[in-house]
Amino acid sequence: MLSRKRKPLINDTQTLLGLSHVSALSLSGISTLIAKGVYDAAFPLHDVSVLHEEWARYSAFYKYQPIDLVRKYFGEKIGLYFAWLGVYTQLLVPASIVGIIVFGYGVATMDTNIPSLEMCDQRLNFTMCPLCDRACDFWHLSTACGTAKASHLFDNPATVFFAIFMSLWAVLFLEQWKRRQISLSFSWDLTGIEEDEVNSPIEKLTWKDRLPGYLINVSSILFMFALTFSAVFGVIIYRITISAIMAMSPDPEIRHNVRVTVTATAVIINLVVILILDEIYGAVAVWLTELEIPKTETNFEERLILKAFLLKFMNAYAPIFYVAFFKGRFAGRPGNYVYVFNDFRMEECAPGGCLIELCIQLSIIMLGKQLIQNNIFEIGIPKLKKLVRTLKEKETTPKAREEEKPPQQWNLDYALAPFEGLTPEYMEMIIQFGFVSLFVASFPLAPLFALLNNIIEIRLDAKKFVTELRRPVAARAKDIGIWYNVLSGMGKFSVIINAFVISFTSDFIPRLVYEYMYSPTGTMHGFIDHTLSYFNVSDLKPGTAPQNSELGNITLCRYKDYREPPWSPDAYQFSKQYWCVLAARLAFVILFQNLVMFLSLVVAWVIPDVPKTIVEQLKREKKLLVDVFLQEEKEKLQLIQRLFAKDATLHPSSNTLPPGQDLPIPGRYSTLPSGPTAGEDRGGGGPRARCRAASFSQFNRNIASSPMKENENSKHTAV
Amino acid sequence: MLSRKRKPLINDTQTLLGLSHVSALSLSGISTLIAKGVYDAAFPLHDVSVLHEEWARYSAFYKYQPIDLVRKYFGEKIGLYFAWLGVYTQLLVPASIVGIIVFGYGVATMDTNIPSLEMCDQRLNFTMCPLCDRACDFWHLSTACGTAKASHLFDNPATVFFAIFMSLWAVLFLEQWKRRQISLSFSWDLTGIEEDEVNSPIEKLTWKDRLPGYLINVSSILFMFALTFSAVFGVIIYRITISAIMAMSPDPEIRHNVRVTVTATAVIINLVVILILDEIYGAVAVWLTELEIPKTETNFEERLILKAFLLKFMNAYAPIFYVAFFKGRFAGRPGNYVYVFNDFRMEECAPGGCLIELCIQLSIIMLGKQLIQNNIFEIGIPKLKKLVRTLKEKETTPKAREEEKPPQQWNLDYALAPFEGLTPEYMEMIIQFGFVSLFVASFPLAPLFALLNNIIEIRLDAKKFVTELRRPVAARAKDIGIWYNVLSGMGKFSVIINAFVISFTSDFIPRLVYEYMYSPTGTMHGFIDHTLSYFNVSDLKPGTAPQNSELGNITLCRYKDYREPPWSPDAYQFSKQYWCVLAARLAFVILFQNLVMFLSLVVAWVIPDVPKTIVEQLKREKKLLVDVFLQEEKEKLQLIQRLFAKDATLHPSSNTLPPGQDLPIPGRYSTLPSGPTAGEDRGGGGPRARCRAASFSQFNRNIASSPMKENENSKHTAV
Repeated sequence: MLSRKRKPLINDTQTLLGLSHVSALSLSGISTLIAKGVYDAAFPLHDVSVLHEEWARYSAFYKYQPIDLVRKYFGEKIGLYFAWLGVYTQLLVPASIVGIIVFGYGVATMDTNIPSLEMCDQRLNFTMCPLCDRACDFWHLSTACGTAKASHLFDNPATVFFAIFMSLWAVLFLEQWKRRQISLSFSWDLTGIEEDEVNSPIEKLTWKDRLPGYLINVSSILFMFALTFSAVFGVIIYRITISAIMAMSPDPEIRHNVRVTVTATAVIINLVVILILDEIYGAVAVWLTELEIPKTETNFEERLILKAFLLKFMNAYAPIFYVAFFKGRFAGRPGNYVYVFNDFRMEECAPGGCLIELCIQLSIIMLGKQLIQNNIFEIGIPKLKKLVRTLKEKETTPKAREEEKPPQQWNLDYALAPFEGLTPEYMEMIIQFGFVSLFVASFPLAPLFALLNNIIEIRLDAKKFVTELRRPVAARAKDIGIWYNVLSGMGKFSVIINAFVISFTSDFIPRLVYEYMYSPTGTMHGFIDHTLSYFNVSDLKPGTAPQNSELGNITLCRYKDYREPPWSPDAYQFSKQYWCVLAARLAFVILFQNLVMFLSLVVAWVIPDVPKTIVEQLKREKKLLVDVFLQEEKEKLQLIQRLFAKDATLHPSSNTLPPGQDLPIPGRYSTLPSGPTAGEDRGGGGPRARCRAASFSQFNRNIASSPMKENENSKHTAV
Repeated sequence: MLSRKRKPLINDTQTLLGLSHVSALSLSGISTLIAKGVYDAAFPLHDVSVLHEEWARYSAFYKYQPIDLVRKYFGEKIGLYFAWLGVYTQLLVPASIVGIIVFGYGVATMDTNIPSLEMCDQRLNFTMCPLCDRACDFWHLSTACGTAKASHLFDNPATVFFAIFMSLWAVLFLEQWKRRQISLSFSWDLTGIEEDEVNSPIEKLTWKDRLPGYLINVSSILFMFALTFSAVFGVIIYRITISAIMAMSPDPEIRHNVRVTVTATAVIINLVVILILDEIYGAVAVWLTELEIPKTETNFEERLILKAFLLKFMNAYAPIFYVAFFKGRFAGRPGNYVYVFNDFRMEECAPGGCLIELCIQLSIIMLGKQLIQNNIFEIGIPKLKKLVRTLKEKETTPKAREEEKPPQQWNLDYALAPFEGLTPEYMEMIIQFGFVSLFVASFPLAPLFALLNNIIEIRLDAKKFVTELRRPVAARAKDIGIWYNVLSGMGKFSVIINAFVISFTSDFIPRLVYEYMYSPTGTMHGFIDHTLSYFNVSDLKPGTAPQNSELGNITLCRYKDYREPPWSPDAYQFSKQYWCVLAARLAFVILFQNLVMFLSLVVAWVIPDVPKTIVEQLKREKKLLVDVFLQEEKEKLQLIQRLFAKDATLHPSSNTLPPGQDLPIPGRYSTLPSGPTAGEDRGGGGPRARCRAASFSQFNRNIASSPMKENENSKHTAV
């Protein structure tokens, strides 16, 4: 049923799948024909009523997925993807709940938190150094009360607990998936599958042939990294310049909203850049992997995934890493600021700390990426493509359409977009997993947003696979492959990242150090004062002082840093407190990392990889298998005996031959002595061949321990 | 051939091993008879000429071990032990070489090392505060020149490299062993083995029955820990008091040698305590595990090993941990020393740093433990036991001995000690592995000593097994079991321990910090001065000043610490340098740990677990297996056809029956169509049964892709 050019190749799944059984060549034959343009496409046809009802509807969101049906319809590879997505989504539920509780703790304690109360206290009245040269005035810390309060929502002791919890959650998720995978591979009978590495028909390429490809690869990836970093840097420059320009505006309204405006627009620019680069990097990764000419299909996929992951990960996380670990750390100090392009001061974090900015950055990029990618890239563009395709089809074959009124399934399916692999689907989820695990210390609501997204994502993917894409040729797979390693690597990486976020981005450690080492009362009272250093306004570089100060004659201003005061012999050097807090931060990183790693080991050790039910079932099956073997051997013996009995009646002389001589291939057959169970007593003196039971050495023990007599000298046939 | 009471049970290995084939009950029957005292012992007999020649001789130390012979003679479990020991010893060779080079670097740079030159320089003439109250005088730092130089041998930049190298070496060792184990399990056919968990005939014990056992367990282990710590503390007290007493001695000779005498005697006491507790803990672990009443033999062994390991590890390493991380850190400072029992000052490290003491401690305990345990416990005591046993035998059966002149093998073997499991052998090696990996940063010669010990150890163990112990009943095992986990855990632990040793015990970080942050010249000149704080002698507590100072009127003395000088407002508080160095130390720990963990992942990822040759061989075997199956099926078909042909000649009427009807169990048999290869053309129109090929679904693919026609509707028989 192969139709010619400009018509889809129509084929029932069974037949197409059957092809691979007849000969591997026929499939590659069709590929050749498609490549030569004889056919346009070859795909199995859709037949989706049940799946649509049970699975591919948004209204089924609360149901478990019918994974076995999905596997039957799409094959194991896609079945495993949806099973994985299901386990992930399910495990996001407890993470979301704990996240909400942690966030709730932040909300509940906001009004009793001493540091933010002190920041808002107008009586304390800290006069802060100006935030920009000339145009900016001195300001009172109490005006930053809002950010201080908001900051407490995410920067409180419960966050530390949550970071530990989420690190263990990541381990738990991986272990849970391992168990599920083993259950599935058992019930789908995938245990014996090995990658049938069909080497592509490329002659062996030498080292010299491959060198140019590798060089292009390395240089391209470095170039892409540079591109990502320049994009991040570009947005920084945008923020710095726009802030400076807006600060000089005569309109006080504009001046007042500088930070909000700049932060919001910058994050949106970041998001757009990320979305565009994401698409570009996807294409570049494919191109680069093709340059490498990998030997096998699996090899190709693994290399592609690694490259795409590296590029997309960098792309999505570079701005977040910048805010978390670098922003405000190279800004210098009053009187000695760092300037970019000789004119613009490096940016600093908001007075409430960098954590609140990190949180904004994270939430906007995470939500924006999910919403936009889901809506535009996953629904919009395929719909558009389908429309274009249908229109084109109409143009070229206007007559044919009129002839056949009820459109055939193959025509309907031909209008759909071709299936392009699971890589983008996994990639989206893995990047999301990064938001949930890597920076979870700064944004405890991330699991909740991920959960909400995934509940939709499952049905959206299901709908897409069932209605928007041509049905893919079913592919087998015994696991999710390299994605597991990527997930596991990300889980490990998240431990150290969270440790650094808590100790360096949040104010958790400085607060602890103050409470236990410096506080005269042993409470948090006076913490804000302690974190602010003094600066003598006369030490400002000429021309950088505020032009018209509304606050009158200021001689000392404060800034957030641990430095010696102007009256110290080492004025403006890092103070002892700075080093002390730094040591405490670093000690916390070590403690956190090792504690979490130890707990992870314990969690992974406590949860057995193979579920108990499967272990028992496997044992039962093994026993059954041995029984079947024994039974077959017995029957074979009966057959031979019967043959002999007949032989004897035909040629009585042959009875004198030594036993076994007349068997077709003596010694190859294993016959059991006709015990009481075999006991139909056909010519009791039948031949007794050597007992070899089964040819599988692994069954020897079971057989040996069964109550039958074994010849001591018989060697196990190790095949 | 079972002899009665007072005589050994004489039994040829074959027969005894054969017993397990006949029935598992017979073995437990013999155990029962032994338990009831009917027999004294049951063991296979020795027969050792080849093993002795090729393996169990010291003069064969340069040879590879004949592992296959060992396995044949002793069974897989012991074979695996010796294979593991072989891999470990082999991999110690490169580690030793690198260790010698690192040590050589220390020796070569000793005379150009600025810090030790400065310490020895009499012109710099630092006057140090007295090392004990009243009796001790002020002293010049240059008198500690010797330890400073010795310290450099182990405390130099090459050590950092060596610590990283050894961490990777540990990973490499584990990976290498994994490969070897897979090779062995392939060539010894162990892949299919599963622990046949023979549940002991204990009725199901409830939670309440087990509670007392667990309580005794936990409390005993806590008690043992307390015992270990008290032993360590006792030695500390010994050192403190003896030092104090010797310092007060009128004899200057004695006063001069205080440190050497006390250190040496204390380490020897430590060693003796460790050796004694080691034996006690071994027995306690067995007793505790029996209390738990584990369900299976494997379970018992694992619990025993974990307990014994925990106790022995604590025992062997507690004094070393004390020296590495605690000694000298709680001594206080001049004018504010910490006192034990109100009278004795806490001990401090030698002026050259704690690393040299750690090194002495490590080398004496490691060497002493190996030499004494090897000589006394492994050679001496078995020999003694044998002697006692032989003497006893002589006493009780003086007549019998005269009657039979040439003693029978069973009598000879009966005189030997019974085999008591591999746990002590493994334990010894694992504790040694700890010396090689855990504190290798402080003692780069550890791998060399381990190597020398192991070359002897292999032959010693071999000799012991062949000549000193009764031949053990061969036991199967598919791997080294929980020991692998212990090794792997130890490798992970060693990374963090080495990081702490380098950053906190050695002077590596303070030197770096000085060179890059404080040194006015950017060199190491002035480092010693920088590490010494000032102390005003008048601040000494009354009655603690030196009684008769030979150095005249001293007003300021120096001590090793980073504290503010007496003229600072925060006199004697930790200085800024202290916090700065602390931060650098902690940062180094984070850097080192994460770098090494990352490199370890890379190493483990680069080395494939299954050697390539094995992968190929497995593929070939699988193919062969399928071929055998097909061949057997074909032969079965021929057999059936032959039967039918004969049936037809006998009863021509039965030919009218539908095909397959006359087969003994229709449908159970798989028959192939008589293709051209089968083509002996016996009654070409034979019956065509449904093709089921093999009952193993895992072979379906291979079979399916072989060029034979498959019925599309045939479902694979999943057994």
